Amino acid sequence: MTDRLGVAVIGAGYWGPNLVRNFGSSPHWDLKVVCDLDLARARAVAGPHVEVTDQLQRVLDDPSIDAVAIATPARTHQGLALDALLAGKHVLVEKPLADSVAGGRAMVEVAEQRGLVLMTDHTYCYTPAVQKMRELVASGELGDIHFIDSVRINLGLVQPDIDVLWDLAPHDLSILDFILPGGLPTTGVHATGADPIGAGRACVGHLTLPLAGDGLAHVHVNWLSPTKIRQMVIGGSRRTLVWDDLNPQQRLSIYDRGVDLARTSVAGADRAASSISYRLGDTWSPALPEREALGQMVAEFAGAIREDRPALTDGHAGLRVLTVLESASATLYGEPALTVPPAPRAAEPALEAVR
Amino acid sequence: MTDRLGVAVIGAGYWGPNLVRNFGSSPHWDLKVVCDLDLARARAVAGPHVEVTDQLQRVLDDPSIDAVAIATPARTHQGLALDALLAGKHVLVEKPLADSVAGGRAMVEVAEQRGLVLMTDHTYCYTPAVQKMRELVASGELGDIHFIDSVRINLGLVQPDIDVLWDLAPHDLSILDFILPGGLPTTGVHATGADPIGAGRACVGHLTLPLAGDGLAHVHVNWLSPTKIRQMVIGGSRRTLVWDDLNPQQRLSIYDRGVDLARTSVAGADRAASSISYRLGDTWSPALPEREALGQMVAEFAGAIREDRPALTDGHAGLRVLTVLESASATLYGEPALTVPPAPRAAEPALEAVR
Amino acid sequence: MTDRLGVAVIGAGYWGPNLVRNFGSSPHWDLKVVCDLDLARARAVAGPHVEVTDQLQRVLDDPSIDAVAIATPARTHQGLALDALLAGKHVLVEKPLADSVAGGRAMVEVAEQRGLVLMTDHTYCYTPAVQKMRELVASGELGDIHFIDSVRINLGLVQPDIDVLWDLAPHDLSILDFILPGGLPTTGVHATGADPIGAGRACVGHLTLPLAGDGLAHVHVNWLSPTKIRQMVIGGSRRTLVWDDLNPQQRLSIYDRGVDLARTSVAGADRAASSISYRLGDTWSPALPEREALGQMVAEFAGAIREDRPALTDGHAGLRVLTVLESASATLYGEPALTVPPAPRAAEPALEAVR
Amino acid sequence: MTDRLGVAVIGAGYWGPNLVRNFGSSPHWDLKVVCDLDLARARAVAGPHVEVTDQLQRVLDDPSIDAVAIATPARTHQGLALDALLAGKHVLVEKPLADSVAGGRAMVEVAEQRGLVLMTDHTYCYTPAVQKMRELVASGELGDIHFIDSVRINLGLVQPDIDVLWDLAPHDLSILDFILPGGLPTTGVHATGADPIGAGRACVGHLTLPLAGDGLAHVHVNWLSPTKIRQMVIGGSRRTLVWDDLNPQQRLSIYDRGVDLARTSVAGADRAASSISYRLGDTWSPALPEREALGQMVAEFAGAIREDRPALTDGHAGLRVLTVLESASATLYGEPALTVPPAPRAAEPALEAVR
Repeated sequence: MTDRLGVAVIGAGYWGPNLVRNFGSSPHWDLKVVCDLDLARARAVAGPHVEVTDQLQRVLDDPSIDAVAIATPARTHQGLALDALLAGKHVLVEKPLADSVAGGRAMVEVAEQRGLVLMTDHTYCYTPAVQKMRELVASGELGDIHFIDSVRINLGLVQPDIDVLWDLAPHDLSILDFILPGGLPTTGVHATGADPIGAGRACVGHLTLPLAGDGLAHVHVNWLSPTKIRQMVIGGSRRTLVWDDLNPQQRLSIYDRGVDLARTSVAGADRAASSISYRLGDTWSPALPEREALGQMVAEFAGAIREDRPALTDGHAGLRVLTVLESASATLYGEPALTVPPAPRAAEPALEAVR
Repeated sequence: MTDRLGVAVIGAGYWGPNLVRNFGSSPHWDLKVVCDLDLARARAVAGPHVEVTDQLQRVLDDPSIDAVAIATPARTHQGLALDALLAGKHVLVEKPLADSVAGGRAMVEVAEQRGLVLMTDHTYCYTPAVQKMRELVASGELGDIHFIDSVRINLGLVQPDIDVLWDLAPHDLSILDFILPGGLPTTGVHATGADPIGAGRACVGHLTLPLAGDGLAHVHVNWLSPTKIRQMVIGGSRRTLVWDDLNPQQRLSIYDRGVDLARTSVAGADRAASSISYRLGDTWSPALPEREALGQMVAEFAGAIREDRPALTDGHAGLRVLTVLESASATLYGEPALTVPPAPRAAEPALEAVR
Repeated sequence: MTDRLGVAVIGAGYWGPNLVRNFGSSPHWDLKVVCDLDLARARAVAGPHVEVTDQLQRVLDDPSIDAVAIATPARTHQGLALDALLAGKHVLVEKPLADSVAGGRAMVEVAEQRGLVLMTDHTYCYTPAVQKMRELVASGELGDIHFIDSVRINLGLVQPDIDVLWDLAPHDLSILDFILPGGLPTTGVHATGADPIGAGRACVGHLTLPLAGDGLAHVHVNWLSPTKIRQMVIGGSRRTLVWDDLNPQQRLSIYDRGVDLARTSVAGADRAASSISYRLGDTWSPALPEREALGQMVAEFAGAIREDRPALTDGHAGLRVLTVLESASATLYGEPALTVPPAPRAAEPALEAVR
Repeated sequence: MTDRLGVAVIGAGYWGPNLVRNFGSSPHWDLKVVCDLDLARARAVAGPHVEVTDQLQRVLDDPSIDAVAIATPARTHQGLALDALLAGKHVLVEKPLADSVAGGRAMVEVAEQRGLVLMTDHTYCYTPAVQKMRELVASGELGDIHFIDSVRINLGLVQPDIDVLWDLAPHDLSILDFILPGGLPTTGVHATGADPIGAGRACVGHLTLPLAGDGLAHVHVNWLSPTKIRQMVIGGSRRTLVWDDLNPQQRLSIYDRGVDLARTSVAGADRAASSISYRLGDTWSPALPEREALGQMVAEFAGAIREDRPALTDGHAGLRVLTVLESASATLYGEPALTVPPAPRAAEPALEAVR
């Protein structure tokens, strides 16, 4: 067991059990403690062989614990992460990294000052499909990225404290951050939304984002759609990729189809028009391994710590996603952060008490 | 033949032949003349039994011609329509009604002053699917309209003189105008677009439009998509409709699925959250007749003239669509109208000469 | 706990854990023992609170055990079930009921002589979709059944001891038995198959079965298909139903489409031809509850015992399925039963020893 | 015009107009005459510039006519074709080649004796999809053919004189004949069918056919299905191809997925089981040109005549299809040929009179 890193999971609510299961079965990790104010829940999640506690200090004081994984509500991330970093722990944080850009920036800065790994759990980035997408973009297979259209809609749970953009768009934005060569652009964001059912926050949202080289990304998130769609189109100058996450038989399709425009130096509209051509080539669908994303993610967390390098989805990635979300809120509501004051929810661990 | 109305078709290019065929086979119409500067083309389109001319005046002077149908490039609509109206002819105009709101308004005003029918050929509104959609909205089957999402993308012909919004969005907007109880809203338009291939005009466009009652409509048009999608979702408070125009086996689906929020007078976030409920009912797909839209459209033109009433898709409908397009251009480019000066195209009838 | 029935699960292999989980969480049952020769496996499946044994006699001698559920290889069903019935236990058996009609008939006869419930675990019959299908047939919504086409193909595990018909067709046949008013027809069976990869048994199979009233059922099973299809069409004189088990968004579709032929008494081909008409009505997709089939199945087992009545999928149902499978094998290979002598498999509990 | 071959089209009913259009616009052919007893129909089809006649002898006596294309009811093919061959004309015949094997064989023999081209119009074989399929099989891309499953079902016109197998299966069988290296196998045919609506002939049919190397082909044709499917799966030892003719966006898919079984010389079931492996590779969808099949077909007819070689779909191909159809009828009805005596139909040209 000397080679394994010690880890504690903070928060045994919705996502915590997935982290517990994956840290628990990873060859890289020794899961030491599960921490939640609700000890009964912590025990149910931890199983018979892992210690539980409702005292964060118990975790921070334990030198055998190298890292903590935080799976609590977004507004508690900043406080918990800073406590852990100041105690010398590496930190993994659920998305979104924090509930404000300022909070996320503080976390990134402290981690860098202390030389610790701060990683954002952008789980989708560790799926075989998204890893393949990143590889195809990086290798130049798609060419320059011309447009991206991401649709994530279904009859979804209307959240009590965040709008549909903060709820669903972090998935799309973290994927864009992961696959775009320069990471997620953070300027020029525009968002539109609607709350037609009177929920008190946007239930339908559209977000656009300019890409390098005159391209455009668009994200459509919607809690009110009767049908479920999770689809992303990445249009490139050489190929266009379609990811249909709900079609296990053909998740990725790469189309050798597109419009080519030879940019001639001769001016004039006629000239431009005549140099347009259309490609109508083959379609290709790569086989993808069956592999759980979270297993890859916890391995990457261990790798980053051991090799003293930033994680693939590090704090900066989380911060870029936050920046876009805040800008979106600003165009939607005229103010940057989470849209409504968070109301206490029975289902949430009251982590202030834990601390 | 005394009961039939006389009609001339102006323009024998892309769309003209469809009008010629439908006026020619309609029991309501007597197709008298096809007019195009390119007489050979006019003859090829008109067939052996219909007169052709390259002189607009020939049409305007003929008292047996009650109406003209204009299927020429958008920038020529205003001039031709005004000439025809001033000569006492009823007028049908291809979409878009004109190339500017000012032009369209002039046409509407002259038609009203003269008591003549001015109709916009919003063909989709005469398809069985869209007629059924209008009926379902009007009957209250869908309830209040909460959101609309319209996607019209494929590997499309990059147009030499108009952008993708002016090329494709008129279809979506004219349908919205037709099915929404109050017609198309024309304020609060926002558009984003991109020209990643350097075509000189937007090839990808997103347009949002607020709906009455805090709803939102979104239109996505794209010339660069490798896959072809023509789909519209109309989310209502009672039912949600999905129109998939490329699925002949199930074009319309009506879902009894949605989120209901009882608006209680008791304040507080908890209260609001607890009153949300989810409907998961049946889906229904009405059978639609097989019927050519253009046949219905030319019949409606005749009906409006005979009954001295506005056509279902009248000049005001065309004007509302123009207004939204101009607003979209203004947010995209900072100026309202068609995006680039129209270049002469060999394939276009030089209709100035005709006049 | 006095109201609950005591049950033992025999066999902790592939299917046993599902039975253990469902008996364990049922309000109708008290799971007493899990029995497998491989005690370690039995323990892993049983969890900490349920007794395990490798001695069948331990189960048979226990008066608190009212019933046993048998989830062992098909060739062991007959022996185990007879032992249990003779010990006065009600018996649930995995599909297929036995490995021969003779064996199945012996089980049915002993159960009837002893007044005990013998139930076949035809799990699909307890899914919401199949229950709805049965209801639609029984209510006359579909009319007379004209044809059935069932396709169950994918890249499947080539089984070491049974062919693709014995492996997959029991699903289709048990469903037909459940939904057809008179149960599964057992005469007139014809099967064709192929073993193109040299596996020693059919890997592709087609089975046809005449239905009452000149109808026809066809079942296509295939281990070699690169795509996965699980679809059944039930063509009726009034409506036709399509069940697409892999489309969670629209599992059942009922089409009001079909060919109607008025059977006039006037003879002659012309007359017949002229009385054919085509219905092209609406399509309807009923919402289905989310409900685990096995929970329903174990509840039915308890209900049959308490009410002293045959289970919905009783021993006779299992016997009809066996009869069709044997007839299929006879037309395929010239002999009735399982196609090859079963080879010992490491993964199989050696249940002879248990007995 | 000296380079063109002269042709007459016999029969101006359902299919004749397509032949007239394609011969008329082909650079290889000079369409001389359209022949039908119903002269008005012949004229409507022929257009203003092609001669019409109701006298077959007019065609046979004309030395400028090199070939005739026969598009009349099946029972008239033999007589018309023999007359034409005996008059020295090359002959193209609609599918099926004749209404019996004996009739088809007579046609093939006379053509060979006279050194004339006898071609069957198996139109599907000239579509880009089927041509690609043939190419992929011939190149070994798919490996040995293990199984074929062809489904051609929809709410179809119940024919007055032939059953669903004779109506629809010629399409599937002619395609199999075209793509299988040795042509269509003609022995071991088995068919099942049903007439649940009392139409007097099978409306649902299943046909199986053994392939070389222990493979199996299955054809499902159905006039009563509410949904329309036209799909063929060709399972090979190296790749499997799926042709979905109703999906223009992805008509052909080639799956590198399958089951491999190493045939070791060591005997024993365990050995066999352990040498099974599963391939889960990429999927590929080749782009197909947009090209009208009939244009290719009439070009092939000209090529065969000029190069004095059999056509790709020659009389023997038509004869193999007939042989399978007759065998299918024999297993279905106990007699070989078309199932009911053909009744006179108003819509059919009474070609006996023409002759």
